[in-house]
Amino acid sequence: MLKVNPDYLKLRGSYLFSTVARKVAASQAAHPDRQIIRLGIGDVTLPLTPTVVAAIHKAGDEMAHAETFRGYAPDLGYGFLREAAAAHDFKARGCDIAADEIFISDGAKSDSGNIQEIFSRDCRIAVCDPVYPVYLDSNVMGGRTGDFDEAKQQWSRVIYLPCTAANAFSPELPSEVPDLIYICSPNNPTGTAMKKERLQEWVDYANAHGSVIIFDAAYEAYISDPEVPHSIYECSGARTCAIEIRSFSKNAGFTGLRLGYTVVPKDLKDADGTALRDLWARRHGTKFNGAPYIQQRAGEAVYSEAGQTEIRGLVSYYMENARTIREGLAAAGYTAFGGIDSPYIWMQTPDGLSSWEFFDRLLEEASVVGTPGSGFGPSGEGYFRLTAFGTHENTKAAVERLQRL
Amino acid sequence: MLKVNPDYLKLRGSYLFSTVARKVAASQAAHPDRQIIRLGIGDVTLPLTPTVVAAIHKAGDEMAHAETFRGYAPDLGYGFLREAAAAHDFKARGCDIAADEIFISDGAKSDSGNIQEIFSRDCRIAVCDPVYPVYLDSNVMGGRTGDFDEAKQQWSRVIYLPCTAANAFSPELPSEVPDLIYICSPNNPTGTAMKKERLQEWVDYANAHGSVIIFDAAYEAYISDPEVPHSIYECSGARTCAIEIRSFSKNAGFTGLRLGYTVVPKDLKDADGTALRDLWARRHGTKFNGAPYIQQRAGEAVYSEAGQTEIRGLVSYYMENARTIREGLAAAGYTAFGGIDSPYIWMQTPDGLSSWEFFDRLLEEASVVGTPGSGFGPSGEGYFRLTAFGTHENTKAAVERLQRL
Repeated sequence: MLKVNPDYLKLRGSYLFSTVARKVAASQAAHPDRQIIRLGIGDVTLPLTPTVVAAIHKAGDEMAHAETFRGYAPDLGYGFLREAAAAHDFKARGCDIAADEIFISDGAKSDSGNIQEIFSRDCRIAVCDPVYPVYLDSNVMGGRTGDFDEAKQQWSRVIYLPCTAANAFSPELPSEVPDLIYICSPNNPTGTAMKKERLQEWVDYANAHGSVIIFDAAYEAYISDPEVPHSIYECSGARTCAIEIRSFSKNAGFTGLRLGYTVVPKDLKDADGTALRDLWARRHGTKFNGAPYIQQRAGEAVYSEAGQTEIRGLVSYYMENARTIREGLAAAGYTAFGGIDSPYIWMQTPDGLSSWEFFDRLLEEASVVGTPGSGFGPSGEGYFRLTAFGTHENTKAAVERLQRL
Repeated sequence: MLKVNPDYLKLRGSYLFSTVARKVAASQAAHPDRQIIRLGIGDVTLPLTPTVVAAIHKAGDEMAHAETFRGYAPDLGYGFLREAAAAHDFKARGCDIAADEIFISDGAKSDSGNIQEIFSRDCRIAVCDPVYPVYLDSNVMGGRTGDFDEAKQQWSRVIYLPCTAANAFSPELPSEVPDLIYICSPNNPTGTAMKKERLQEWVDYANAHGSVIIFDAAYEAYISDPEVPHSIYECSGARTCAIEIRSFSKNAGFTGLRLGYTVVPKDLKDADGTALRDLWARRHGTKFNGAPYIQQRAGEAVYSEAGQTEIRGLVSYYMENARTIREGLAAAGYTAFGGIDSPYIWMQTPDGLSSWEFFDRLLEEASVVGTPGSGFGPSGEGYFRLTAFGTHENTKAAVERLQRL
């Protein structure tokens, strides 16, 4: 008999971006003359850089000749990319991570959705509130979240870590001990980042309690504060308690190319000595067939000298937008956070408006689109996310409209 | 406390191809002068075709300019590819499948590993024996297989469908009713294919018993017999009981490019009316971020007139190898199956040798590598898989060596 996964039926509708899209379409239809500026979605707009494009063409040409054709990639990634990531992202920062602890994938979203699978179904997870929805939804699908409480807008078995202006968006250590702790720093959606000292407290907590931290470092390229760690492995003891997820999407514009990786150190083991690394490798070997050769060569190009110069240019371009938004909002008397170590600005809604009320007002009166903070969790209520991924021109225009609001 | 997924710990070691590789390396080391010919692995050797390579270059160039850059792809695939697949693979064969029932992915292996996730953990699965290991292993990870019986070399909750020469490698309808039935036709590893009449019996059985068929059609391009269906949707009633998985790997040589898709018809629902299509879409939306734009344009190129001509060339080349192997084995007095509608030849080992004994003998005496049938399941014992994915020259040389054995 056809029996569906009952945990899937518990999933909440993912109405956030579809509701945004519907409202934007309705506004445009009602006012066809208005130029709507979108600062809502976390997708990049600048093209791939010349070095990356050249690598794509070169790899494409290799695939065109029998002598240089590449069939199935190694499940865990080509050595050339794993070595480059180990050297550049870790050894260069003094982190003790080897190439064979790096698992190349088709992106950080896949990895952050799939990683829960190697853990027991009865693990209790902790997430920040507000939070990137994939951490929660993938655990709903995995049967770990209990039931949804409509009044609280929370899952019964999830430990929530509220992040608001009151705690400077830095989650407090929980009173109940979670088995799995999701931390994203620099954070989506709040745009804030944990300093090393604070992250070290979490690493120490995890080691003391036998918890595992899933550390999402997708936005590390945007860090400007030297006290903010780029990798959790900058903290001592992280090799025994932390998994780190990395992306090429936001630093190098690979959102449409799909490439990322996850680090699972060999020292991360359960009480019986089972290495999580081996379970993750087995998942890759069974349910994945390697990231494409072309993409892996494109990723390698990112680590070249020219590639690094180019991606610094991309990040600078977007961070100029972040500055424009931050300073423009401050000048107009808004309170806003983030945008220093991250491409996201997390503003407080003015006049006590709810997130959605401000969304509607901004769309109707300024034709600017952002993302209502409440869509990321109950503690996001009263906040609003703007992204720095637009063009300079549109970003300036949007800020001017916000100032005139 | 770190608690790993206990179902992962039940997984059997995947020693088949690693043992093959180890033995081959040892033989080469012992006899450095021998030219070993590998007909063991199912990876293609011919390069991507000119139309596909041109599409890769064109899409790569589009990604290099802001006006044509593509960020996140739609989770479920670009319309241009879903429409092309619907028109060419289904409507052209009289199958009633719409573009929005087609879900583009990074390959058939990912899909065939992930699809079990939308079903309940207590579903009972049926697999052919021998079988492509991913169907079984992904269900071990999903907690559906019970315990492994070392004596039988079988999982306690799995319904096995033996496929041997005695039933012409066509599985019998089971006496116990499975909830999920995996069928791969043309089959890996046996190289045989189900005729439409036989597949219709399975569709009727599934509809009568409320079972779902996961139909793996990765090798459909190799079908030569007009009585063998290319899609399960050629059978009447399949829309209410079947999911079909397709690949670009074996028809167009995309093993290193990664592209595939899965069809989940809207009519496939559980007793409460929940459409499996919606669950699969939700999985894509949560744990996947779309197949890359470049790959999807490459896939679209496969459906162009030039692309179709080119991939027919690839398939013909490999099927010439299949003929060489089949006829060569027959001429030497071996009994072999497959190779008519598939790139795999499934030979009986001579002289009552076990699969591994024949492997060793072939490697030592002829320096030819194949895959021991017992590695695909207990009913594969006494068989041996050869693939048609080599060059003409190597394939002929291998067959001559087999004939001299």
